[in-house]
Amino acid sequence: MSAVTSKTTAEAEIRDLVNNRVEAVRAKNVKKLMSDHAPDILLFDVLIPLQYSGVEEARKRTEEWFSAYGGPIGYEVRDLNITAGADVAFCSFLYHVTGTMTNGTEVNMWVRTTLCCRKIDGRWLVTHEHNSVPFDAETGKAGLDLKP
Amino acid sequence: MSAVTSKTTAEAEIRDLVNNRVEAVRAKNVKKLMSDHAPDILLFDVLIPLQYSGVEEARKRTEEWFSAYGGPIGYEVRDLNITAGADVAFCSFLYHVTGTMTNGTEVNMWVRTTLCCRKIDGRWLVTHEHNSVPFDAETGKAGLDLKP
Repeated sequence: MSAVTSKTTAEAEIRDLVNNRVEAVRAKNVKKLMSDHAPDILLFDVLIPLQYSGVEEARKRTEEWFSAYGGPIGYEVRDLNITAGADVAFCSFLYHVTGTMTNGTEVNMWVRTTLCCRKIDGRWLVTHEHNSVPFDAETGKAGLDLKP
Repeated sequence: MSAVTSKTTAEAEIRDLVNNRVEAVRAKNVKKLMSDHAPDILLFDVLIPLQYSGVEEARKRTEEWFSAYGGPIGYEVRDLNITAGADVAFCSFLYHVTGTMTNGTEVNMWVRTTLCCRKIDGRWLVTHEHNSVPFDAETGKAGLDLKP
């Protein structure tokens, strides 16, 4: 396989990984979402605390996220940028998350995501994930009404 | 060069890149900090807006950052994790930023950083950077007093 073909294949595989996430969130399917997580994943998430270490902490966080919504979660990805080598890759995107939380809060915000991946035993896994919204220095508030 | 040696070298090179950043921030040296930026860098920063595209937007943001502090900026990195392939690499770390802004605000917070790099013409450059603090869902406030 030429280097060009290999690179194209790797990019397609990372694109599949992102598509799998989109389907998993929309279906609120924890197992499907966790299927791309490396055992030692380091997660920097949108909400406090600073970090979650390992797949079990990430799973609890995911379960809390999905159960915080009584109905469906809207999850739309845009501006996906992929850089893939032979066994190390990363991608970034923005996602628009919408829905109604069980406490009545209407969620409608744009989030930045960076996924960092390693190819382990022939499969791409996310070893580091970073999700966030920026904050406004003047108010100290997270920017929940920003638009790309 | 064996694969093991090459991997070790790449990790050392990314470590040097991070050390260069630490020195650049502490010296408030914009040019030194920008020296690792790819021309098309996509920056997700701690403060609004959602993103900065390209090295010129990133430079303006850096100049604003440095000039917002009348005196020195304290910048301490910990928990540096590096994953490096032949020409694609990423790393994550936490940094503790301290100092007094020109408007009198005392800054003393921990930030999460992810740097995503490509080796271009023999040099590692940051093509994507993600800096953030998580927020508290109950208050909508950025977590400025979190500790690792």
